[in-house]
Amino acid sequence: KPTFDPKEHQHLRYNPLRDSWVLVSAHRMKRPWKGQVEKPPVDNTPRHDPNNPLCPGSVRANGEVNPEYDSTFMFDNDFPALQPDAPDPGSDHHPLFQSKAARGVCKVMCFHPWSDITLPLMQPAEIRKVIDKWADLIVELGAEYTWVQIFENKGAMMGCSNPHPHCQVWASNFLPNEAALAERCQRDFLQKHGEPLLVQYARMEAQAQERVVVENEHWLVVVPYWATWPFQTLLLPRRHVLRLPDLTAQERDSLASIMKRLLTKYDNLFEISFPYSMGWHGAPTGSHLQEDMSHWQLHAHYYPPLLRSATIRKFMVGYEMLANEQRDLTPEQAAEQLRKLGEEHYKMKKT
Amino acid sequence: KPTFDPKEHQHLRYNPLRDSWVLVSAHRMKRPWKGQVEKPPVDNTPRHDPNNPLCPGSVRANGEVNPEYDSTFMFDNDFPALQPDAPDPGSDHHPLFQSKAARGVCKVMCFHPWSDITLPLMQPAEIRKVIDKWADLIVELGAEYTWVQIFENKGAMMGCSNPHPHCQVWASNFLPNEAALAERCQRDFLQKHGEPLLVQYARMEAQAQERVVVENEHWLVVVPYWATWPFQTLLLPRRHVLRLPDLTAQERDSLASIMKRLLTKYDNLFEISFPYSMGWHGAPTGSHLQEDMSHWQLHAHYYPPLLRSATIRKFMVGYEMLANEQRDLTPEQAAEQLRKLGEEHYKMKKT
Ligand SMILES: O=P(O)(O)O[C@H]1O[C@H](CO)[C@@H](O)[C@H](O)[C@H]1O
Ligand SMILES: O=P(O)(O)O[C@H]1O[C@H](CO)[C@@H](O)[C@H](O)[C@H]1O
Repeated sequence: KPTFDPKEHQHLRYNPLRDSWVLVSAHRMKRPWKGQVEKPPVDNTPRHDPNNPLCPGSVRANGEVNPEYDSTFMFDNDFPALQPDAPDPGSDHHPLFQSKAARGVCKVMCFHPWSDITLPLMQPAEIRKVIDKWADLIVELGAEYTWVQIFENKGAMMGCSNPHPHCQVWASNFLPNEAALAERCQRDFLQKHGEPLLVQYARMEAQAQERVVVENEHWLVVVPYWATWPFQTLLLPRRHVLRLPDLTAQERDSLASIMKRLLTKYDNLFEISFPYSMGWHGAPTGSHLQEDMSHWQLHAHYYPPLLRSATIRKFMVGYEMLANEQRDLTPEQAAEQLRKLGEEHYKMKKT
Repeated sequence: KPTFDPKEHQHLRYNPLRDSWVLVSAHRMKRPWKGQVEKPPVDNTPRHDPNNPLCPGSVRANGEVNPEYDSTFMFDNDFPALQPDAPDPGSDHHPLFQSKAARGVCKVMCFHPWSDITLPLMQPAEIRKVIDKWADLIVELGAEYTWVQIFENKGAMMGCSNPHPHCQVWASNFLPNEAALAERCQRDFLQKHGEPLLVQYARMEAQAQERVVVENEHWLVVVPYWATWPFQTLLLPRRHVLRLPDLTAQERDSLASIMKRLLTKYDNLFEISFPYSMGWHGAPTGSHLQEDMSHWQLHAHYYPPLLRSATIRKFMVGYEMLANEQRDLTPEQAAEQLRKLGEEHYKMKKT
């Protein structure tokens, strides 16, 4: 019988943040791809388009005019999935027909006045301003809401309907499913092992190096042992930090630097503006601000859809939707590919 | 304060099969869509293509020649994610680096010798043959494996790489995440409420009618109260049935009929061959064949990606991946749209 080789032999890996398993079948990369190919991301966005509602000076759907902003800019989502005043569905509920009130706010935050720039091409000082705004948002919305989800959908492939660099913030009076899962898993881990899950994990990954993509004094980026998406990464502080506002000035500069390095590598992988959805998970807020939340560790997830090239994505479909998440290369292979890439952006080299 | 209207006021609904919540924000359908549009499904597939490895008489990747089959045809997947003999990853595992052996088989099953036909256009007697094969597969593979996942990825949008009508079967020695969830939820429900979850649910939905799409003597199709995908449906027997092989001849004919009706409505919705991933969930097999599994009820899930038209899909991205599933119309609205559609296939009307 052959000895186990993760690149040749399918196996399951446990995701301790979601209490679930991923099927790793790396030998599947050998199959030829005859399915759908995506359009590569467009690369001719004008720097300024007066008809783009995210640009400085533009008129938005509700008739408001954007200021001539020169850094970040925040406004309320004109079509919010969460509104602050939705009435309660009531509480006479059969176990099979349960509903619950959902209240919240949705905001949009532009990263930069230019439509033709992205985070990896921005200056570290400009990225730092984005980070400061993120931290402010957690303070501001976290005072009222239980969960403040900051997320960026980048690229048309990830449902992003506007090329202007921006992210969204959806704050809610409830713990969303993924937050509730992360809450339970981290709480159980601390109780059982006496150390926060992701603090221990970052230390062990820094030591092993095998899945590290980039690192610096304060931060570490790995393709997690349990990654589902082909080039999924997890961004972790080395210090125990509960929420974005807790970061020191130095840690924020350091975060701007590591984000720029990670996202440059992503773009360099297939020499395109790399699509992904990313978001921050920190300790819950609202009434939880008064509780002991030391089982939490701040972290960001990056979920990019691409698998083989700029136009061939991983489809999470039949088996994944109905049975189990499955990946087609090992996390170690993905980490190695990303680690080997240069840190100069391919667009900078060409000019 | 206005009274609660599910079409206007966001709220959460509980999914008792997955123990999670979905955010329903139906007022969001009002926002204009400026994001990515999909290519509509191609409609010029030749009936027979000697270079298509799924056609009768074709040569497959491994050099085998397909028989001149005239009904269903089954073969081993040439690039299986699960193989029967993968070695064990070993068992010295840190809680953060846990892996587990995964063994299984992957098969492909063609529904029909023609590449230009789909289930809704097949004769009920032909669909019945597919159902009989599905039942046989559960018997055959279920004798050895714990879980036999039958699923169909239909359409390029769902990662399907071959237009020839076919499904896949992945059998495994482990309970996949989704199966484990359905197992736990149904077990807890029976214990607590004295009746199998989906038996009770089907009875209540048949009575309410609000979410029913099609029904007959033996079967019921609803947009479940907790549906995540815009036009997601759940196909349920009225009788308590654990697994596909338990279906009587009459129930199988009746299933062929209701599948044809449902899939015709799906195609009629946007007048295209409607993309989806679907699959069967029945009681676990292997060693579980000897256990009391009466908390289970056989069912099929249909997960179609489209939202607004043949080319505008729902993107499950940032907020959905990082926080909570979210839908943009109520399940009742979706059910009504599907219910109102005719049961004659649009392609039949035109000729
Ligand atoms: O084996 P296929 O049909 O080529 O592959 C398709 O279905 C599989 C099972 O859902 C997925 O893992 C693949 O991403 C998808 O492209
Ligand atoms: O609000 P947007 O950016 O138009 O919408 C995008 O992100 C949302 C949050 O992840 C998703 O619900 C939408 O499906 C997606 O298209």
